[in-house]
Amino acid sequence: MFIRNAWYTAAWADEVADKPLARRIMNEPIVLFRGQDGKVGALEDRCCHRGTPLNVGKVTELGLECGYHGLVFDQAGRCVRIPGQDQIPERAKVRHYPVVEKNAFIWIWMGEAARADTSQIIDYPWHDDHAQWPHKHARYDIKGNYMLMVDNLMDLTHLGYVHGSTIGGNPMQHVDAKMKVTRKDNGLHFMRWMLNSVPPPTYIKAAGFKGRIDRWQEFEFMAPSSILQGTGAFDAGSGAYDTGNQDSPFKFRLFHGLTPETETTCFYFWSAANGYRQDDPAATDQLFSEIGKAFLEDKAIVEQQQIGLNERGEAGLVDIATDGARVHMRRVVEQRLAAEARSIAAE
Amino acid sequence: MFIRNAWYTAAWADEVADKPLARRIMNEPIVLFRGQDGKVGALEDRCCHRGTPLNVGKVTELGLECGYHGLVFDQAGRCVRIPGQDQIPERAKVRHYPVVEKNAFIWIWMGEAARADTSQIIDYPWHDDHAQWPHKHARYDIKGNYMLMVDNLMDLTHLGYVHGSTIGGNPMQHVDAKMKVTRKDNGLHFMRWMLNSVPPPTYIKAAGFKGRIDRWQEFEFMAPSSILQGTGAFDAGSGAYDTGNQDSPFKFRLFHGLTPETETTCFYFWSAANGYRQDDPAATDQLFSEIGKAFLEDKAIVEQQQIGLNERGEAGLVDIATDGARVHMRRVVEQRLAAEARSIAAE
Amino acid sequence: MFIRNAWYTAAWADEVADKPLARRIMNEPIVLFRGQDGKVGALEDRCCHRGTPLNVGKVTELGLECGYHGLVFDQAGRCVRIPGQDQIPERAKVRHYPVVEKNAFIWIWMGEAARADTSQIIDYPWHDDHAQWPHKHARYDIKGNYMLMVDNLMDLTHLGYVHGSTIGGNPMQHVDAKMKVTRKDNGLHFMRWMLNSVPPPTYIKAAGFKGRIDRWQEFEFMAPSSILQGTGAFDAGSGAYDTGNQDSPFKFRLFHGLTPETETTCFYFWSAANGYRQDDPAATDQLFSEIGKAFLEDKAIVEQQQIGLNERGEAGLVDIATDGARVHMRRVVEQRLAAEARSIAAE
Repeated sequence: MFIRNAWYTAAWADEVADKPLARRIMNEPIVLFRGQDGKVGALEDRCCHRGTPLNVGKVTELGLECGYHGLVFDQAGRCVRIPGQDQIPERAKVRHYPVVEKNAFIWIWMGEAARADTSQIIDYPWHDDHAQWPHKHARYDIKGNYMLMVDNLMDLTHLGYVHGSTIGGNPMQHVDAKMKVTRKDNGLHFMRWMLNSVPPPTYIKAAGFKGRIDRWQEFEFMAPSSILQGTGAFDAGSGAYDTGNQDSPFKFRLFHGLTPETETTCFYFWSAANGYRQDDPAATDQLFSEIGKAFLEDKAIVEQQQIGLNERGEAGLVDIATDGARVHMRRVVEQRLAAEARSIAAE
Repeated sequence: MFIRNAWYTAAWADEVADKPLARRIMNEPIVLFRGQDGKVGALEDRCCHRGTPLNVGKVTELGLECGYHGLVFDQAGRCVRIPGQDQIPERAKVRHYPVVEKNAFIWIWMGEAARADTSQIIDYPWHDDHAQWPHKHARYDIKGNYMLMVDNLMDLTHLGYVHGSTIGGNPMQHVDAKMKVTRKDNGLHFMRWMLNSVPPPTYIKAAGFKGRIDRWQEFEFMAPSSILQGTGAFDAGSGAYDTGNQDSPFKFRLFHGLTPETETTCFYFWSAANGYRQDDPAATDQLFSEIGKAFLEDKAIVEQQQIGLNERGEAGLVDIATDGARVHMRRVVEQRLAAEARSIAAE
Repeated sequence: MFIRNAWYTAAWADEVADKPLARRIMNEPIVLFRGQDGKVGALEDRCCHRGTPLNVGKVTELGLECGYHGLVFDQAGRCVRIPGQDQIPERAKVRHYPVVEKNAFIWIWMGEAARADTSQIIDYPWHDDHAQWPHKHARYDIKGNYMLMVDNLMDLTHLGYVHGSTIGGNPMQHVDAKMKVTRKDNGLHFMRWMLNSVPPPTYIKAAGFKGRIDRWQEFEFMAPSSILQGTGAFDAGSGAYDTGNQDSPFKFRLFHGLTPETETTCFYFWSAANGYRQDDPAATDQLFSEIGKAFLEDKAIVEQQQIGLNERGEAGLVDIATDGARVHMRRVVEQRLAAEARSIAAE
């Protein structure tokens, strides 16, 4: 069960270059391509003639050409050429999916095309602000349901156990963090402070902290599966927690986009933008590299968790005190799913 | 669904030497072996004692000996020896399949043994005419349903898209070829001419054409899945099309035999025999090598097609103008399947 | 279908050291761990919080700590710590399995914990008698149902076909061996003599036999799947068969424990103890190495047999004269299964 009437990250814009790109989303085989007009299209990855996947074709002047017998399709899925035939029948077409290129992402709408409202697409201007927020991005292919990755980001007490060598360590600091959750209709927001705490290895590498720090993390979850994160740290004793000051000299932003590939696999699109030493490309590289290591630790534990859940699902599992944000996040997603089911039933 | 009362290519004769050969056909595990009397047998690949596959046994004087406890079977599937036991019970036997060795092939009958009529086996005397038609052969293991490979050979417009670097290129020449199809009860025949056309790379390598050519191709499809092909070329302006002359100085023959391994995999037995420079083994080698490359291109596209069809089968696919021969071929096969189903129902 | 109310070899004791050990038994994922108190526990391998396998956690002072959010469990499956939470709810627990460490084994009870009767655990004192019976042990992971390995040990005529280069060879010697089977309620015992027989390669290497031998083998099968074996040889003409003398100068003991992992895979725990040249570690090493080679031959043939049985099960298979012990063994196991089914139905 997936929320279909929603925008998902289908790809990084720079993944869709001169060759077609195969990508399975919600268990549907899709081909993304960039026409010679520069516009990106997303089609069912199956030629309507003999079923050959279109991703093994090539982009020509008219559109995406099938690699078997040469039929050509435009971004709307219409067949615009059949070799050896002048008339193109109405039935010669493939399903197309609405896509929008914005802020370095390709967003895709997996539901009814008629309901695709581009105003619902998340704004992420930081990707375009290369001067103040230089960034790098990546895609991790996760052998786990996409919600397990969202879960992971909603309960940060895992940092103490999973990320000891990178962004975590010191489990009880994380367990005892000050956490303020604000529930929203379509998501949630939380602020988290760890005052007078030991800086993790990654922070020391990036900012050279000598002593303890006041560390903050801000998370915005937007259903179905995007998380916008800001984080940073002051030297301990800053008083920033009391004044709500987040303008720390060391700060960075992370984007997390989870897109279901199948029920048990997903794509993790993430970027890291540094709000410090912006003129030094080494700072961006180092942040990206350190965060990338930490996220591989998340990938490893979530893939193990999926193996565990494959046995008996979530039956009998017990929520604990630190699960507050995670539980609300799940509720939001379930409400969206239920509303979508009702909407389909009513038609 | 497979046509069972028919002869299929089970193996090249030289594949069945001193060791048993495991081969799955129509999803049935079969072991082929050559007895010390030189006769080939095909048995269910499962010892009747404890179920061990017989292909891990060895050929002994009495027949095929199981590698576990030493039971021996002859080509008719009868158990002829049980160590430690004098009497051999009637039930100690395994299914045997009729096989015939002919023209370098081992043909197998997958239906009722009583209906196995050896007069229905295709004649392919070219394999025995080493002076006029020297040949080489191969087996490609295809991850695709066997009919997809037959489809491939019935619509040659794919040469322009799939085989640009070998036997194809110049898509519109293929689309515009003169094509004459003759339908038959148990197959079809077609002649195809591309007059005044650019020779493909393979032809230039083999025959040294300097300019355009008049190129002909003759295909005989015989259900369920054998295709006999002759092809050749004259220098352009030959007039051969008008007179029906196929005796070109450059010509060769191809045999294509497709045998279902499972619903989604098959064996492609093919040979190439050159009718030019017959005294020069390099000509045979070169033709075989070039054709082999082209057939790997077919293998690649058909395996992709199978991946596409695994999603939703052939539902909703659209036939196009160049599909004439392919559609008739499919009809012949479906009629054979339907007749066989009626015949079984009537018993 | 497995006999559940029984003890199985879960592991060699030395496999359970400082790190948790994942082991699937009867298709249930289990984690074995040794607490800092030295006691071994066996738990369902799934944290009751978010389903993460506990085998990726670590052993801490309180017990086994989950690697995701730090919950800790003791050997009884009770959660004894939840980070961020003082009260631990009753529901926070995972299934535990009774285990006993004895004679270098970890035995596990897969049925109802209340019925776990430790007096039923096999005694194998030879593992503790390092002076008279020095031994080495191993675990082979077999891609075959565990009963196929028990079958293998109940019909030794396979030695002639499977083990020609190690402990077998000379098929008819094995077929004609004197075999005395004693049936028991929960197993069977057999003595087997091959008088005046050619010594197999392994025996010559170990004991330097120059001529023919009187070779004996004693097997005790104890349901569900343990086999205790003693074997040895005298120079031919010893008269030992008539007197029942098994105290040959060359003798060794083998333990075989088969534990179902899934319906089609199992663990083969085996040890070899030499009752000759006990002061020479090279004798133990050599015996272990030679036996290990022979058992790899069993592994190979049984894995092929499983592939064969995957096709059509055991339907239509034919028992032969040498199957006596095997057939009785199967009957004992089936009676235990039937009794267990009745016992469950009666509750």
